[in-house]
Amino acid sequence: MTAYEFEGWLGHDPDSVNGKMEWGRFEPKKWTENDVDIQITHCGMCGSDLHTLSSGWSKTDYPCCVGHEIVGKVVRVGSNVKHLQVGDRVGVGAQSLSCLQPDCRQCSNGNENICRRVNVNTYNSQYPDKQGKSYGGYADYNRAPGRFVVKIPPGLASEDAAPMLCGGVTVFRPLRAHGCGPGKRVGIVGVGGLGHFGVLFAKALGADHVVGISRKASKRDQVLQLGADDYIATEDDQGWVKKNAESLDLIISTVSSDKIPLGGYLKLLDIGGTFVQVGAPDKGLLPPINAFRLINSEIKVTGSAIGGINDINEMLALASSKNIKPWVETRPLSDANQAIIDMEAGKARFRYVLVNEKHAKINSAL
Amino acid sequence: MTAYEFEGWLGHDPDSVNGKMEWGRFEPKKWTENDVDIQITHCGMCGSDLHTLSSGWSKTDYPCCVGHEIVGKVVRVGSNVKHLQVGDRVGVGAQSLSCLQPDCRQCSNGNENICRRVNVNTYNSQYPDKQGKSYGGYADYNRAPGRFVVKIPPGLASEDAAPMLCGGVTVFRPLRAHGCGPGKRVGIVGVGGLGHFGVLFAKALGADHVVGISRKASKRDQVLQLGADDYIATEDDQGWVKKNAESLDLIISTVSSDKIPLGGYLKLLDIGGTFVQVGAPDKGLLPPINAFRLINSEIKVTGSAIGGINDINEMLALASSKNIKPWVETRPLSDANQAIIDMEAGKARFRYVLVNEKHAKINSAL
Repeated sequence: MTAYEFEGWLGHDPDSVNGKMEWGRFEPKKWTENDVDIQITHCGMCGSDLHTLSSGWSKTDYPCCVGHEIVGKVVRVGSNVKHLQVGDRVGVGAQSLSCLQPDCRQCSNGNENICRRVNVNTYNSQYPDKQGKSYGGYADYNRAPGRFVVKIPPGLASEDAAPMLCGGVTVFRPLRAHGCGPGKRVGIVGVGGLGHFGVLFAKALGADHVVGISRKASKRDQVLQLGADDYIATEDDQGWVKKNAESLDLIISTVSSDKIPLGGYLKLLDIGGTFVQVGAPDKGLLPPINAFRLINSEIKVTGSAIGGINDINEMLALASSKNIKPWVETRPLSDANQAIIDMEAGKARFRYVLVNEKHAKINSAL
Repeated sequence: MTAYEFEGWLGHDPDSVNGKMEWGRFEPKKWTENDVDIQITHCGMCGSDLHTLSSGWSKTDYPCCVGHEIVGKVVRVGSNVKHLQVGDRVGVGAQSLSCLQPDCRQCSNGNENICRRVNVNTYNSQYPDKQGKSYGGYADYNRAPGRFVVKIPPGLASEDAAPMLCGGVTVFRPLRAHGCGPGKRVGIVGVGGLGHFGVLFAKALGADHVVGISRKASKRDQVLQLGADDYIATEDDQGWVKKNAESLDLIISTVSSDKIPLGGYLKLLDIGGTFVQVGAPDKGLLPPINAFRLINSEIKVTGSAIGGINDINEMLALASSKNIKPWVETRPLSDANQAIIDMEAGKARFRYVLVNEKHAKINSAL
């Protein structure tokens, strides 16, 4: 028995994405001594939440409580969880279980969050061994395997840490993996919820030159204000490809349209440069790539998915030490239905974070 | 004045590719003290030779003597060339001049053969400063800047070394650059002039498992005989993708059709694997890639062009020490016109090498 109830915003059908979630109780996964219970104070809102509520990617297992950018306070710790104590401020990202086997390419390298053998997501998944279903962070409490729960370092505000746990690490991982740092010139395609983290992290990692790339010239000031050294508007800057040819070493593309000017982006890469796609178009297909471009410049086209626990810990440490301030707007958890509607309408600048008012107040000293 | 004449097979128009080259004299580049003259004994035949004779890629500067897999004996050395002496057995690959500037990404890394700032090819190019035109190796003598002339190590037959200088290094470079060696599982798409080198070098570099990949089951025995551990026939093996999913770390694709089953090839790669395209379709466009494949498996799609001087030297040393025997068929230089017709007809198994009978005889002790 616990002294608290698991309640949250539940989607019961695809219409829930239209501001029709209902507050209610849910049955968390069966408790094991590997688990942690978290009193939720904050939860970032991610595009995946909307896709899942609407059954947009695949049929959702309703009722569903979404949210996988969870921050809160530990209120119960299983005896097998050695790195956490009751009272710790912690976070949970997009995955909550993996195979954890030493022969797994991901789990054995600190990338358990992107293991594909046992891929239990933080919500809308079934735990093995009939332990029940996973429910996300638009809620009062969350239960998650401790292995997937990280400490939030001091000095980093909870509303800033939350959206990093999925959105932030999705761009941080490829930046780190592909050598973003001194001597490197980095482009970020799409400066929104994901891309604005790209600009912030690329600067914090010490890249020589960081360029925001988006469609409209009207976004220029905002992107420079974020800290970008330059900005390219692909629809408004005449001759943007030629003018910026071979000027970048690394490009992270956060956009998910299948109409992206991929050939143009690739021409921005210098010899040996890398293009990383983290946004996926609906049907997945990218525009065809010219083999001569790959051959003559030996550029690499690749992708990246969320990030591992190691990535998350490293990102949070960097954000804390460099005092990184993402652009978030907080919304009260009670207002989650309206927040979803506003997010779908593209109003977030750049990331919404739901605040569980009663818990945030209790924990305001954290 | 020199004691020898520069004569060779000259193409005078696009029809020359149909066995209509004519033997004749040509004026080599103007001698400088950076240059070397080579008495040619062997010259490999490369697909580029045919494309150039026919003006297939772009309008050729006739008269043109093709051939950029040249092996022979040094007969004259410029005073600025310190690494060669008269009498050395040497080779020349596909490029014969580059910018050689310290700020060039390629030249400063031993990759001068793929510099794009000053890209003088071994034939059909103009040297700067009105030094004249480059002529290739279907000839008696060749004059080339010494920087682009490498020593052939002892123990490696000249007819085996020749086709490595372009064909061989085109696959050797990406194998080395992407970590082919112990612990790696490597696939070679297309087992012909380029691909058969891929199988040989991948084995010599110590890869755990080397798989030949081609269309027809009928090629299986030949590919296993080359040393491959396994073979996949994409047109004849039912369910080849599923059966071999995630079984490779590195794939080198030497085919140049735009109809390649690229999506299938990419599914053969394990997490983090690399696909390298070295063959280019006519119009260059590869089939569209699925972004989910890039994202979920973090695979890389890239390309590679020929190889640098460092690559060539390393490859020749490996071939010599591991006693690598490529499958070449020698043809007398006097028979070059017929050899071109046979090559175009796909008869080479796998690479033709022209032998300059009179010079090879003189140098048979080399």
